[in-house]
Amino acid sequence: MKKIAVVGLGIIGGSICGALTSAGYTVDGYNRSDAAIEYALQKGYIRAKAERLSDYDVVFIAVPPTATIELLRNGEFKNGALVADICGVKSVVEAAVYERERNYRYVGLHPMAGKETSGITSASPNLFKNANLIITRSDKTLETDVAEIKEYAKAMRFGKLIECTSKEHDQKIALTSQLAHLVSNAYVKSEQVRHCDGFTGGSFQDMTRIAGVDENMWTELYMRNREYIVSELDGLIQHLAEYRDAIASGDESKLSEALKAGRLIRETIKRGND
Amino acid sequence: MKKIAVVGLGIIGGSICGALTSAGYTVDGYNRSDAAIEYALQKGYIRAKAERLSDYDVVFIAVPPTATIELLRNGEFKNGALVADICGVKSVVEAAVYERERNYRYVGLHPMAGKETSGITSASPNLFKNANLIITRSDKTLETDVAEIKEYAKAMRFGKLIECTSKEHDQKIALTSQLAHLVSNAYVKSEQVRHCDGFTGGSFQDMTRIAGVDENMWTELYMRNREYIVSELDGLIQHLAEYRDAIASGDESKLSEALKAGRLIRETIKRGND
Repeated sequence: MKKIAVVGLGIIGGSICGALTSAGYTVDGYNRSDAAIEYALQKGYIRAKAERLSDYDVVFIAVPPTATIELLRNGEFKNGALVADICGVKSVVEAAVYERERNYRYVGLHPMAGKETSGITSASPNLFKNANLIITRSDKTLETDVAEIKEYAKAMRFGKLIECTSKEHDQKIALTSQLAHLVSNAYVKSEQVRHCDGFTGGSFQDMTRIAGVDENMWTELYMRNREYIVSELDGLIQHLAEYRDAIASGDESKLSEALKAGRLIRETIKRGND
Repeated sequence: MKKIAVVGLGIIGGSICGALTSAGYTVDGYNRSDAAIEYALQKGYIRAKAERLSDYDVVFIAVPPTATIELLRNGEFKNGALVADICGVKSVVEAAVYERERNYRYVGLHPMAGKETSGITSASPNLFKNANLIITRSDKTLETDVAEIKEYAKAMRFGKLIECTSKEHDQKIALTSQLAHLVSNAYVKSEQVRHCDGFTGGSFQDMTRIAGVDENMWTELYMRNREYIVSELDGLIQHLAEYRDAIASGDESKLSEALKAGRLIRETIKRGND
């Protein structure tokens, strides 16, 4: 049986451990602090603490981008090990992998799953059930490596598996994840927000659910995907300004047209969780 | 037993009928087209079609703002009838009520419940279960009228009942509901949206759920609450522009501070549905 290690026992890393262990794999955990290791042992997510990554056939790296890049550049891996990261940005990670010779095989991952909380206490063996998994690949990626990753993905019970380039990932994720977290974080900054208890319904809950981002991790993510997230922000601000101007000037037909345009687009989007 | 009529059998009006009927009240329905009446009869939401509103002791008006105002101004109600509307804006409705003598009693309502779909086929006797209900009142509102409305609200199984002025309602709802619908409608206008199948998770679903607004009803709502919604839009655009500028210029500490400010506010908000 292949020896598997997971680096970084946060919500994602802890859930990878739990999901693979539940599926019958043997998984060891590697973490900066021992508290998460203790927790993962107690929960049965891992078999043991991983001491040396170079002992492992498969390594999942589940730490923020800067630490991921550092490890991919300077970590000691077993010859021929399969290494996968789970960062929310992929181009800069892939670039770090390919910038020089390396003794390991690499596939990029981005599980489209999470919660508005973080840390291993938020982890769950079921976190990935039916979630989308994005697998990034370059012209250097081997088909057999992707196939091997897909086996683990199926064991973790991911739903749809999507393959794309790191660039395509970064462009789309700027909209589907990065922009959403900025909007939510901005949404709660209204002066009115502190007086709104009882005045809220499902739409307010939806808008503000993910406002409490970890500013350190997300600053890393945004700064490593600047071009695409700025483009999405510019687009959203422009569209909001159109409504704003139509309302401020009392232009009903302009506002109605703008709302209708959004509705028609909405109707073309496949409703994932509806 | 008091005779109750509901005007407008859409998602809200239909749900009021169903909820009150389930609680043992006898409710008749009044609607422009007969199709919704037929549906409500079949579902057992109403006892009969209401022919003349002046026959009823209690009337719930569940139509868009302009039609609501027209009916409150020119409708024929029974002397002393209790009339309540459910519009998403309250100041303009209240002003129409008080602009001259009237023979009915008035209380304003705004149920904080709904779906991303509309019409009576989306109605449900359980729609209001545990939802917030905002009750608007002026210095002319009688305590006994509010008490009577609260009985119906409890029968419909609302959760928290909030009382406030129409102005306070309009200011808060600009943030908690109106802005959310604009943001969602704008969110789907990104060029990337058509290529995102498989690249989405819960945050994208949340952001885009309510994008498909009925442009006619929402144009009415926005145009009747211009000052407050423009203020919310200006605030949100400003906060988004701050992130945008920090990211574009690579200013990590500025971005991190801005994200942290949002996180700290988020942590003070009571989590309704968490």
